[in-house]
Amino acid sequence: MSTENLHKNTTSKKKNTGHSRLADNKKPATSGNKYRSRNTNPRNHSQKKAAEKPALPVKLTMLGGLNEIGKNITVFEYGDDAFIIDCGMAFPDEDMLGVDIVLPDFSYVEKIHERIEGVFITHGHEDHIGALPYLLKQRIFPIYGTQLTIALIDSKLKEHGLSGKVPLHVVKAGEVIRLKQVSVEFINVNHSIPDAVGLGIKTPNGYVVHTGDFKIDCTPIMGKMIDLPRLGELGNEGVLALLADSTNAERPGYTPSERVVGESFANLFKKAENKRIIIATFSSNLPRIQQIIDAAAHDGRKVAISGRSMINYVSIAQELGYLSVPDGLLVDMDLLNRYPKEKMTIITTGSQGEPMSALARMAFSDHRKVEVGPDDYIIISATPIPGNEKTVGNVVNELMKRGCDVVYEKMYDVHVSGHACQEELKLIQGITRPKFFIPVHGERKHMEKHAALARAMGMDAKSVLIPDIGKVIEITPDKMEVTGSVPAGRVLVDGLGIGDVGSIVLRDRKHLAQDGLIVVVAIIDPVSGQIVSGPDIVSRGFVYVREAEQLIEDARNIARTVLEDCCRKHSYDWATMKTRVRDELSHMLFHKTKRSPMILPIIMEV
Amino acid sequence: MSTENLHKNTTSKKKNTGHSRLADNKKPATSGNKYRSRNTNPRNHSQKKAAEKPALPVKLTMLGGLNEIGKNITVFEYGDDAFIIDCGMAFPDEDMLGVDIVLPDFSYVEKIHERIEGVFITHGHEDHIGALPYLLKQRIFPIYGTQLTIALIDSKLKEHGLSGKVPLHVVKAGEVIRLKQVSVEFINVNHSIPDAVGLGIKTPNGYVVHTGDFKIDCTPIMGKMIDLPRLGELGNEGVLALLADSTNAERPGYTPSERVVGESFANLFKKAENKRIIIATFSSNLPRIQQIIDAAAHDGRKVAISGRSMINYVSIAQELGYLSVPDGLLVDMDLLNRYPKEKMTIITTGSQGEPMSALARMAFSDHRKVEVGPDDYIIISATPIPGNEKTVGNVVNELMKRGCDVVYEKMYDVHVSGHACQEELKLIQGITRPKFFIPVHGERKHMEKHAALARAMGMDAKSVLIPDIGKVIEITPDKMEVTGSVPAGRVLVDGLGIGDVGSIVLRDRKHLAQDGLIVVVAIIDPVSGQIVSGPDIVSRGFVYVREAEQLIEDARNIARTVLEDCCRKHSYDWATMKTRVRDELSHMLFHKTKRSPMILPIIMEV
Repeated sequence: MSTENLHKNTTSKKKNTGHSRLADNKKPATSGNKYRSRNTNPRNHSQKKAAEKPALPVKLTMLGGLNEIGKNITVFEYGDDAFIIDCGMAFPDEDMLGVDIVLPDFSYVEKIHERIEGVFITHGHEDHIGALPYLLKQRIFPIYGTQLTIALIDSKLKEHGLSGKVPLHVVKAGEVIRLKQVSVEFINVNHSIPDAVGLGIKTPNGYVVHTGDFKIDCTPIMGKMIDLPRLGELGNEGVLALLADSTNAERPGYTPSERVVGESFANLFKKAENKRIIIATFSSNLPRIQQIIDAAAHDGRKVAISGRSMINYVSIAQELGYLSVPDGLLVDMDLLNRYPKEKMTIITTGSQGEPMSALARMAFSDHRKVEVGPDDYIIISATPIPGNEKTVGNVVNELMKRGCDVVYEKMYDVHVSGHACQEELKLIQGITRPKFFIPVHGERKHMEKHAALARAMGMDAKSVLIPDIGKVIEITPDKMEVTGSVPAGRVLVDGLGIGDVGSIVLRDRKHLAQDGLIVVVAIIDPVSGQIVSGPDIVSRGFVYVREAEQLIEDARNIARTVLEDCCRKHSYDWATMKTRVRDELSHMLFHKTKRSPMILPIIMEV
Repeated sequence: MSTENLHKNTTSKKKNTGHSRLADNKKPATSGNKYRSRNTNPRNHSQKKAAEKPALPVKLTMLGGLNEIGKNITVFEYGDDAFIIDCGMAFPDEDMLGVDIVLPDFSYVEKIHERIEGVFITHGHEDHIGALPYLLKQRIFPIYGTQLTIALIDSKLKEHGLSGKVPLHVVKAGEVIRLKQVSVEFINVNHSIPDAVGLGIKTPNGYVVHTGDFKIDCTPIMGKMIDLPRLGELGNEGVLALLADSTNAERPGYTPSERVVGESFANLFKKAENKRIIIATFSSNLPRIQQIIDAAAHDGRKVAISGRSMINYVSIAQELGYLSVPDGLLVDMDLLNRYPKEKMTIITTGSQGEPMSALARMAFSDHRKVEVGPDDYIIISATPIPGNEKTVGNVVNELMKRGCDVVYEKMYDVHVSGHACQEELKLIQGITRPKFFIPVHGERKHMEKHAALARAMGMDAKSVLIPDIGKVIEITPDKMEVTGSVPAGRVLVDGLGIGDVGSIVLRDRKHLAQDGLIVVVAIIDPVSGQIVSGPDIVSRGFVYVREAEQLIEDARNIARTVLEDCCRKHSYDWATMKTRVRDELSHMLFHKTKRSPMILPIIMEV
């Protein structure tokens, strides 16, 4: 590993003062000076005497994105430099009842917050930016991202009341952000959202390359092909470690180009010529949306946009010039009826069957503006994310019951993945030739397959590490090892509450969900030793009470017997009384119903 | 449609007396006379003057298995004849919280029970036999099935205390059961359980063919290839209607033979030669289990069986001679440690990632007898049923974290489906040449694809009907139409309760699961107009109370204010009081937390 081949230092004329240098802001951003822009020459990793310092270890600490899908976040440290790569959210698992989203645990970031120089974002997907507002509410850091990424973050910050409070820096692919001893280069990659980048982090030990989410698309719809030449140059210069996207590491071969979907659309639009076309896809998949717009324009159709997040993405993308929309093509959803059905295309949310999404509302006849039927030709331009297969299937079934034609993944090329398959992953390894390899972004099975690919490429087992969140990985030119751990895990967001739903609350929700609840209320007069009122039984989610009167009566009798016994013995230890009521009721109810409702005895005294 | 080509009536010598004839029982069953056996010559549909009667409509009423996966059950009626085909259960959807299994609504069967001559079962899978005990507890009917099917039903009836109470008739493929005007022929088909049959029901209007679940396997591991010649004969004789399995109607091509899995096993066993092999598959897939046993025997390994249902199936199959197991091959799970790991194979349940299954327990280090690690080579010989993708993935991830090699569907031929793909479905249509076609066993999307295949084969749209449960379909030689409907739906089983969990209970469970519960208790003295005790707040599944003391205190204050106001006004209408408490609390809590817990005000008076 050497730094000899580094690009020549040409722009670092001003004094390196760390943070202040980061705020360097001479050139306006492309979008009307909305955000600060980095004034850096492309690919110039100038470091003041960086090479003279002794080689410290690169420290990598992932707080999410490993052994899970989502909440991608990595803390990078080298010497005095520290920054964060991505800050995403995850969706709750099935057993996290009532939880809205899942955040990383930011304790470690908070602990070293004074050293954190900024957050570098690879692209604008929720699993890479969704947790930013929650991080920034604790502590403001400058954010670095490409134009679209920053615009999406800005829109998110507005929703959270953080607008204008966070320094947002627009960086172009090819540009370099210089920190104290390391510098971060944005490298263009292909993905299912435009403006995605990987990071080439130059350290005295060599480059650390983080691919972000990526695929290799030689004929992308938006932006340029992934900058393989630059990745190859980094390989030549010396890559200490490669961190690469494992999402599709189970899949052999190559991910097809986004362009093949456009060809399918052209064919399907012909088939559907007498019908209204409704296409559901991911709101953030702007290349997909562009291709739908192109197909519609080609066939003389109008386009309407349905679903809150779809409208949001399309409007941001239009404003920034990412979408090319012929004048007069877009029509308002309220004006649908002015156009003949066979002249309309609706682009909608709901490609994952989400119950509240526009497509699901259409399917279940719950959409205010769209009623679907035999005149509709519906294309689901997405693959179900694991866990969503059944909800997507339900929506397809409902649409078919209403007579719609429905085209979905299994039969036609209406979707391609945004992630690299095995051949692409090997190619990236081959051209970067890293000393050490760390698969990231994936469940264990994805990372295992990815690690196996690296070993198949000739890396020895010690040079490949399958990490876990919270583990501190230190990499020197000689070795890579886990040297410690920091707090990491899941912080659950439910409504406005962040972290107030934990294992006890979830355990109770699960219990209530399974078998419901029995409340036993009684008033006792300890002086007279009498039950003054009750016991009354209130149940919810247990049995249909009107048809289970005898069971409820039996429950009341058992509670009364227990309480009378306590009164007779003058043992008014409320905790013991409650436990006895709970135990005896629980036993009887399980015997009679094989169910174990939560039992809440409430005993009051007068 | 004519009856001229019918096989000649050769065996019907005794008087046709309907039901008594059904109990005809001369020949002992193959398995030591355990069950009654039908003494019928193969393929003899003798009917007394059936052809002379006027052609009545065939009535088909599906009470399940349409627009859903599972609980397959069809009521067949013609003139004085009535019988049931299959009687399966379904697994609950995600939104049926706490529900164990789902049954068909038997109201219609109960209504016509006096006319029902028996239940004909196509094969022994749960979605075809699982609801039988519940039907038979209401009303005893004779059951007809092949040897293995009847043995599995018998085992199930024992569990439900119905042993010996139900007439069980073993019928062989090729045999015919004569009813009054119709007769039912068992036709050998291939499926993922041995002894599966389709039914050829001879009526004066022609044959009604019900495929049951099937595939075409020219090289099956157990039993013979599906009896295509006989289906072709029925086609020649005249098939009025074909009802066929739609499960795989979305999949192009052919389902591979079960035999290819055996070839994969042979290769994988070589790869795993220094490790213990653990294979998870469906307990009922006896051909699969046979192939694992063969591969183990070939490699000189012992086999242990893990998981309650796996043990049950293997023991029944061994007893009846379906499994061929070399002496000394099977070893008890308790004796695992006596054998070197590389000489062991464990066949286990859990191929769907079921949380309580043996494989899941191994994965999460919760199995009493098996601890897995780097010495284990684990094969998941199954595809996740839609909805189970994530649980299967979780188990794979956990096994990999423990260092196991895990081989699953995506990479190797370790599973084949038991259901026919599009080319097979077309073939069955082609050789039976039905006048009318009804796709069955599937969600809407499967039935739609299956119907499209029939139309592509040249059937006109009017001859193809996509049915729904509870619809009465009448078929005469001239037309097929829906003529009415009967009650049909889902009866939920939770513990011992059958049907006592309905929409209200499920709605409450969902509410409790999402946001938990707040109970407000107070005692009021209407005479003095005072709150004697409380209000107290008890919460479960809402917030972690120790960290939300202020919120709970705020809630208590609001409840107190409302109650005091009511007392002051002497308005002791308890319902109104409760509504006010609920509304004001709900409003405050939503404002502060964006959550809507269930609020249960309990106001008592002294």
